[in-house]
Amino acid sequence: MAEYRIETDTMGPIRVPADRYFGAQTARSLVHFAIGIEVMPRPVIRAFGILKKAAALVNRELGLLPEDKCAWIVQAADEVIAGQLDEHFPLRVWQTGSGTQTNMNVNEVIANRAIVLAGGTPGSKKPIHPNDDVNMSQSSNDTFPTAMHIAAATEVRQRLLPAVTALRDTLAAKSQEFADIVKIGRTHLMDAVPLTLGQEFSGYVAQIDYGLQAIQAALPPVYELALGGTAVGTGLNAHPQFAERVARKIAELTGLPFVSAPNKFQALAGHEPLASLAGALQTLAAGLMKIANDIRWLASGPRCGLAEITIPENEPGSSIMPGKVNPTQSEAMTMVCIQVMANTTAVAFAASQGNFELNVFKPLIIYNILQSIRLLADACRSFREHCAADMPELDYQALEYAVHPETGRLEVDASKLRPKAGAPLRPGITPNRERIRRYLNESLMLVTALNRYIGYDAAAKIAKAAHANGTTLREEAIRLAPPLKDGSGVLTAEIFDRIVRPEKMVGPGLE
Amino acid sequence: MAEYRIETDTMGPIRVPADRYFGAQTARSLVHFAIGIEVMPRPVIRAFGILKKAAALVNRELGLLPEDKCAWIVQAADEVIAGQLDEHFPLRVWQTGSGTQTNMNVNEVIANRAIVLAGGTPGSKKPIHPNDDVNMSQSSNDTFPTAMHIAAATEVRQRLLPAVTALRDTLAAKSQEFADIVKIGRTHLMDAVPLTLGQEFSGYVAQIDYGLQAIQAALPPVYELALGGTAVGTGLNAHPQFAERVARKIAELTGLPFVSAPNKFQALAGHEPLASLAGALQTLAAGLMKIANDIRWLASGPRCGLAEITIPENEPGSSIMPGKVNPTQSEAMTMVCIQVMANTTAVAFAASQGNFELNVFKPLIIYNILQSIRLLADACRSFREHCAADMPELDYQALEYAVHPETGRLEVDASKLRPKAGAPLRPGITPNRERIRRYLNESLMLVTALNRYIGYDAAAKIAKAAHANGTTLREEAIRLAPPLKDGSGVLTAEIFDRIVRPEKMVGPGLE
Amino acid sequence: MAEYRIETDTMGPIRVPADRYFGAQTARSLVHFAIGIEVMPRPVIRAFGILKKAAALVNRELGLLPEDKCAWIVQAADEVIAGQLDEHFPLRVWQTGSGTQTNMNVNEVIANRAIVLAGGTPGSKKPIHPNDDVNMSQSSNDTFPTAMHIAAATEVRQRLLPAVTALRDTLAAKSQEFADIVKIGRTHLMDAVPLTLGQEFSGYVAQIDYGLQAIQAALPPVYELALGGTAVGTGLNAHPQFAERVARKIAELTGLPFVSAPNKFQALAGHEPLASLAGALQTLAAGLMKIANDIRWLASGPRCGLAEITIPENEPGSSIMPGKVNPTQSEAMTMVCIQVMANTTAVAFAASQGNFELNVFKPLIIYNILQSIRLLADACRSFREHCAADMPELDYQALEYAVHPETGRLEVDASKLRPKAGAPLRPGITPNRERIRRYLNESLMLVTALNRYIGYDAAAKIAKAAHANGTTLREEAIRLAPPLKDGSGVLTAEIFDRIVRPEKMVGPGLE
Amino acid sequence: MAEYRIETDTMGPIRVPADRYFGAQTARSLVHFAIGIEVMPRPVIRAFGILKKAAALVNRELGLLPEDKCAWIVQAADEVIAGQLDEHFPLRVWQTGSGTQTNMNVNEVIANRAIVLAGGTPGSKKPIHPNDDVNMSQSSNDTFPTAMHIAAATEVRQRLLPAVTALRDTLAAKSQEFADIVKIGRTHLMDAVPLTLGQEFSGYVAQIDYGLQAIQAALPPVYELALGGTAVGTGLNAHPQFAERVARKIAELTGLPFVSAPNKFQALAGHEPLASLAGALQTLAAGLMKIANDIRWLASGPRCGLAEITIPENEPGSSIMPGKVNPTQSEAMTMVCIQVMANTTAVAFAASQGNFELNVFKPLIIYNILQSIRLLADACRSFREHCAADMPELDYQALEYAVHPETGRLEVDASKLRPKAGAPLRPGITPNRERIRRYLNESLMLVTALNRYIGYDAAAKIAKAAHANGTTLREEAIRLAPPLKDGSGVLTAEIFDRIVRPEKMVGPGLE
Repeated sequence: MAEYRIETDTMGPIRVPADRYFGAQTARSLVHFAIGIEVMPRPVIRAFGILKKAAALVNRELGLLPEDKCAWIVQAADEVIAGQLDEHFPLRVWQTGSGTQTNMNVNEVIANRAIVLAGGTPGSKKPIHPNDDVNMSQSSNDTFPTAMHIAAATEVRQRLLPAVTALRDTLAAKSQEFADIVKIGRTHLMDAVPLTLGQEFSGYVAQIDYGLQAIQAALPPVYELALGGTAVGTGLNAHPQFAERVARKIAELTGLPFVSAPNKFQALAGHEPLASLAGALQTLAAGLMKIANDIRWLASGPRCGLAEITIPENEPGSSIMPGKVNPTQSEAMTMVCIQVMANTTAVAFAASQGNFELNVFKPLIIYNILQSIRLLADACRSFREHCAADMPELDYQALEYAVHPETGRLEVDASKLRPKAGAPLRPGITPNRERIRRYLNESLMLVTALNRYIGYDAAAKIAKAAHANGTTLREEAIRLAPPLKDGSGVLTAEIFDRIVRPEKMVGPGLE
Repeated sequence: MAEYRIETDTMGPIRVPADRYFGAQTARSLVHFAIGIEVMPRPVIRAFGILKKAAALVNRELGLLPEDKCAWIVQAADEVIAGQLDEHFPLRVWQTGSGTQTNMNVNEVIANRAIVLAGGTPGSKKPIHPNDDVNMSQSSNDTFPTAMHIAAATEVRQRLLPAVTALRDTLAAKSQEFADIVKIGRTHLMDAVPLTLGQEFSGYVAQIDYGLQAIQAALPPVYELALGGTAVGTGLNAHPQFAERVARKIAELTGLPFVSAPNKFQALAGHEPLASLAGALQTLAAGLMKIANDIRWLASGPRCGLAEITIPENEPGSSIMPGKVNPTQSEAMTMVCIQVMANTTAVAFAASQGNFELNVFKPLIIYNILQSIRLLADACRSFREHCAADMPELDYQALEYAVHPETGRLEVDASKLRPKAGAPLRPGITPNRERIRRYLNESLMLVTALNRYIGYDAAAKIAKAAHANGTTLREEAIRLAPPLKDGSGVLTAEIFDRIVRPEKMVGPGLE
Repeated sequence: MAEYRIETDTMGPIRVPADRYFGAQTARSLVHFAIGIEVMPRPVIRAFGILKKAAALVNRELGLLPEDKCAWIVQAADEVIAGQLDEHFPLRVWQTGSGTQTNMNVNEVIANRAIVLAGGTPGSKKPIHPNDDVNMSQSSNDTFPTAMHIAAATEVRQRLLPAVTALRDTLAAKSQEFADIVKIGRTHLMDAVPLTLGQEFSGYVAQIDYGLQAIQAALPPVYELALGGTAVGTGLNAHPQFAERVARKIAELTGLPFVSAPNKFQALAGHEPLASLAGALQTLAAGLMKIANDIRWLASGPRCGLAEITIPENEPGSSIMPGKVNPTQSEAMTMVCIQVMANTTAVAFAASQGNFELNVFKPLIIYNILQSIRLLADACRSFREHCAADMPELDYQALEYAVHPETGRLEVDASKLRPKAGAPLRPGITPNRERIRRYLNESLMLVTALNRYIGYDAAAKIAKAAHANGTTLREEAIRLAPPLKDGSGVLTAEIFDRIVRPEKMVGPGLE
Repeated sequence: MAEYRIETDTMGPIRVPADRYFGAQTARSLVHFAIGIEVMPRPVIRAFGILKKAAALVNRELGLLPEDKCAWIVQAADEVIAGQLDEHFPLRVWQTGSGTQTNMNVNEVIANRAIVLAGGTPGSKKPIHPNDDVNMSQSSNDTFPTAMHIAAATEVRQRLLPAVTALRDTLAAKSQEFADIVKIGRTHLMDAVPLTLGQEFSGYVAQIDYGLQAIQAALPPVYELALGGTAVGTGLNAHPQFAERVARKIAELTGLPFVSAPNKFQALAGHEPLASLAGALQTLAAGLMKIANDIRWLASGPRCGLAEITIPENEPGSSIMPGKVNPTQSEAMTMVCIQVMANTTAVAFAASQGNFELNVFKPLIIYNILQSIRLLADACRSFREHCAADMPELDYQALEYAVHPETGRLEVDASKLRPKAGAPLRPGITPNRERIRRYLNESLMLVTALNRYIGYDAAAKIAKAAHANGTTLREEAIRLAPPLKDGSGVLTAEIFDRIVRPEKMVGPGLE
């Protein structure tokens, strides 16, 4: 790297690359926090762009920032929001616990970019000063938690909810599709009384619905923004109207119902809203884990497992066992779910560790929250497209590739995936009706339907005899011929055939 | 133990103590699950009493249970609810994952007690059969999760919310009381700009409020009951109206808005509602941990710590250091908070582990949920009474003792605590105004008020000089005399004195 | 409670029950820490008995404690060790984070009991003073962590290791027993190449062995005792030889290789040794969870699951489905494993929260450690006796009952369980050879044996064809007749029969 | 992206970029697992290079792989090890749970690279086939866990242990340096008896030593490699000597004591060794968190905190409060510690979720393990260099920059950091002797030294009086003049001055 310029902060001069807008404090942070490889998540940078833009606009409205300065800052902030300045934000997650260095990274980049837009010299701090202008009426202590909330809410709304809802809807459609398929139930992994495959899938839909409900219930506190609290929550150095106005402005810019947090002291020092959101993500993860596990168990086999459903064969399953196909989408999903649960622990623990006027675990918290959101969203989308749903078959010979903006590695360009011409739909989850029927007929738990007629104890005798003798319930019922509870005689083949009918056993009712 | 009787179940005869109502399956479980010392929590047993009573009443309404059987069952259930039969419920948490054995323990105890009320012989199953009558229209698979929800909701409403709210109100009152005390703020543990002690406490109130809000938001799904789903969620062997009616009956008996769960398959196989509740308890715990930590740090000293507040001296703090007093209520609280966070992990992990039609981690889940509720409630009450609030001094020479119904050990009878006659109020959290004032005056961060007049960089120079030289801000400000940003001259002593006034720095505003 | 006496501490007089030996500080703690129902675990109390006895003996040796005082203290301590004074230790876990109150509870009980032995008046502190004599050369800050280590090491050695080892040995015996049973392997839940059931069980043995190895590796630091550090680790007020001598004495009394911790500052303020032990318990739990899950999956059915093994039928499995039998021991075990993992999180989090010269999360840490040990030990014993091992059938009509010393509830007296006269052994885990053979023959993954002869791609074609057509591998192999890699011709029936032999596929080797 | 070629696997043809060596299965995985942004960690890829090289060499030795094929594979593998082919490994963590796709990514890249070296056409599978040659004698199921162990052990040895040990040694040196500084101790955050600052730091050293010891104890099982187990642990399709030979070869290539795992069934299906390693990393994290917290608390102030030490000022601490300096290295460290604890939970949970012959949470496990190792190593290095140690002042005007190979973002080139010419050493942790002395003299807990002379109760009276009256211990001791325990009179000023000497109180001994 040949070309440099000198930037300065209150610590002194420092050399930075000439082609980067960041300044002294960012450079200093690169020296002091060369920890790990986790870069501050892009949604946080984008949220900072929105925040700085809103602050500039409000400061102008309040007469604190001149028109031209505001315009330059807004233009630079728009570029941050659009992701055009991403390469100017190299800082990692593991830095000051208040996120001060990322706030300064943003201040510096916007200031220098604005300076360039104004025809000035980067590093001169003229006409735009990173602290006095870009950070006007703000502190890291209120901007960073504000950016956390903007990023989390936006990612939940734009990335997570659509992906989860799409999976939910696919499972709901499958539930409808499978409404007439009566199958053996399983409790404790053991054969139990029957239900329909549609009912089983309706449980999955309900599980996701509770996850969605938990997330929705967690959002209102996340819409509450710390901005206006400045250094310790009092709002020192900010205009009395700043907090309310800037929240309104952010709401306007994002289309989300952001408001000013009612208590700024909590907003800087506690992170209850994000702890609650993490809890909700964990609820969703718990449900998804159960669903993904069920799907892979139901698809287990093909010959020595349960094999009640078939799932798509997306890739060769084994490097050594030819022809093997594995439930790989379930596996990716269950790994994601465990990660989300662990991340929730990290968030909660971190949220408990504030002191006095500040919690200094902020980058950790938002890193874990955003990873959880991202993973859940992507895994739900992937699971839906490559496992659950009936989808057009892809034309794998027409794949396009692109460099992933965050990993820096080549990836398949998802926007250019296209269906294989003339190919039939590739089915998603598909029932194996023959196997399902066989299990149903073999089950001993159909005996439960007899409870009301011969009592639990007599019914148990029949089931145990059939199990011990390898016979059918019907055979043992006729052989044992227990008395009917209403005193009208003993159990006969006719009565057995009238009562023990799986298709009648999938709903409440006593005949 | 000399006297026994023989009970039987489908496995055969088994000996039980003559003076206990439990039957064969409970006895069998005592043999097979001698694991740990954690007895099934009493709120679960009480909830089962409510559930069995409600089921009997509804079965009677539906014409399925004769009047007299219903009456005996209800009377026995009422005794369970009242705790009169507690010694008949010896089973531990670590049993079948569906809680089947506890359901059967309840069925057996109610049946045998009802038999006795009817003048019959315990163990005869006549006239009341534990399965056919007490468990009518039910399965362990729907009763146990129903009891979990009743127990959790009841404990939250009756035990947790009042205790947390009382602490919140005490802190809110302290916040009012401390409204005029200007003190140094601390961020990153370092001296920062001032706020009032009342503002600091208002943050605590807000933290608890978010916890309360999270808990309230988590309750509606907990009010949804699995009952009516029977074995796998279909409701087999239950009357079509049973689910709705029994939920209504339970609502009536408890005064809480219980309803029938919209999807019974989820209600047996997922535990999203309790995972969400655990997440909410964790949010509360995170906030309480921060508050308790702050209190003990603010009270640290008496001479070599921060010492901004004083807290009650409840007990000798050290067995070796005479006169030492420790922030013991904070310590109990922070231990509780960590336990609650770990419990939340247990609940979430367990909630993810269902298979097909059942989750078999139910006793674990409710054990952790109820421990968390109990600990948070008790710790909040204790922290309020023995640390935060101004309270009457107790008359320690008039203590009464009683046997704790759950630990079996002697405890102080809390209902008979009485104030010491004539003693003044024992103050709770009390500010050390002199120490607070001294810190405030010494702080270098008051320099922040100068930002708007001389800019961040010039202000930083003043603070750094004072720090390096051990001088005051005022001295350095006058010595350095930086130019004013508005071009009207340099910073003077007069201007300094007008701007740098802590009491003006505790709210937004730019002078 | 009618009779009381007055005890005093530095806070003043307080009333205590006349029939209890505890004094003022214990009573005070009952008032101030009425939190939860978790009583300080008995192994901690017992460990304190050992510690106080050792301290008295060493203080006498060092000429600091008169002979007679020592003798009375030792006798009282012996009664504590024997559990005879259990009812005098009512304090709960949630107290001062240093365990000061439990240390004082012990000091008070031993002092008063010693006073009575000496013919004195309880509460008089003469001739034995709880602080000056029983606590001589000690502080809560070094005694409590010492008791934690003694309790943890003792429980691991006496309770956990034997139970885990017994289960391990049972599984090893089963592994031997099943050495010749060739069965289908399953990876990703999908059919894979074969192995023997004995090999599968050898994996379980190895998993437990790693758990045992981890625990053994964690013990040495646990053998290091804080005692002698007194209040802050310097050893103030203790004789220079006290630390070494008392550790040697404790080693002597317990038969375990306790030594004096090399750094007492760490020993009071960090809890790395117990964090490591918790990590080791977690390793064991992870392995046991996998084993218990495997067992219940292999036993799933009886007709609609895998059903490769049968496990004992210990109790009726369902209150509604007659004849149902469930893998209840696996369920208890998996619940225990989750609890242990959550407890580990609690311990690690707590261990990180020390400040300066003390960690004040000690009662929480030892509570979680001891619960984990207890649960793992009991669950392993239970799983072995009631699931894994072939055992004598119990005589359920000869059960004896007793009151559980810790739960206070009736339990089956395990020491009086006896086999049913003349009954055959009740088999533990038993293979279903017929089912195992059927799966093996149906599997498509036997195709893997062909890789070396026809290559991975050709082998995959055969497997996929058999799967698609519902045919056998052999049929498709002959039909497709792929060329052999060595150029010697194509795959024939003869060659197929020579190569694809499951019993040859259960070890390394290329024919 | 303009140029492509077609690759094929058993699923059919698929388009891949012409300039990448990866083949069909990697491409397919890019389509099916577009989840998250976490790329498979580089140490895993490097470990795979070592593994594939070793396998080829052993297969050649065993006569299974021709000399030329082996040579090409080895050359390609060497390029993988050197990181030269990094851009050919784009797969993410969230894929098949066995890591099959990463194994195939490696097989494909090495095969195609070897083909090119051999003068062939990429994608032709000639002369090198990814499965038949590169994956010879292997399965994903045994290679991936082998790569996990190689990566974990190597990273621990090469990255973690040196960084942690360096920090430990720095703290040990500081402990020596501070050996004579007597300071107030603090327990429960409250003033306690004195110790030296050197003793306090010796506790930190001991904490890290336990962490190191735990890690060392966890390594032996990690040195045990699954390779040779192939698909299910039996070693099917591998030469009987393959397992032992390849482990020896890997040991040779790495210089680490790798051996073949004694039980391959466990090695594929359990992950106890990595669960134990995670537990050990957690132990280290717990200790580091306490240390980092202590440092920031001791450095708190500068005027309104404890301020017993000073730490380096690395960057401006606040974007709003001029001149503020924060304990930022402690904050990065504590965030890292929480992440490590959460990661441990993820690893343990995942390790418990194996089924039958395979655990399919492998990528998740190694991702969390390696992140923990990396973060701990980097944070220890950073904390040492930028906080604890006395270091040359850097020449910030001579920084060089480079692109980070993993983040793809600009970073400061650490290898080119150089000291500022002529600048003095920048001190690390430095005691504030004056402040330390002031606290020591004010403390009331020096009273503890009187216990042996006047008894605990009389000493408590003196301390309480001094606290209540704002006086000194000496004043109150003389005023109260308690009797001496030996009956020789009362406490006098002379006696007080002889006994209460802080410098005599920092070790055991009774005067």
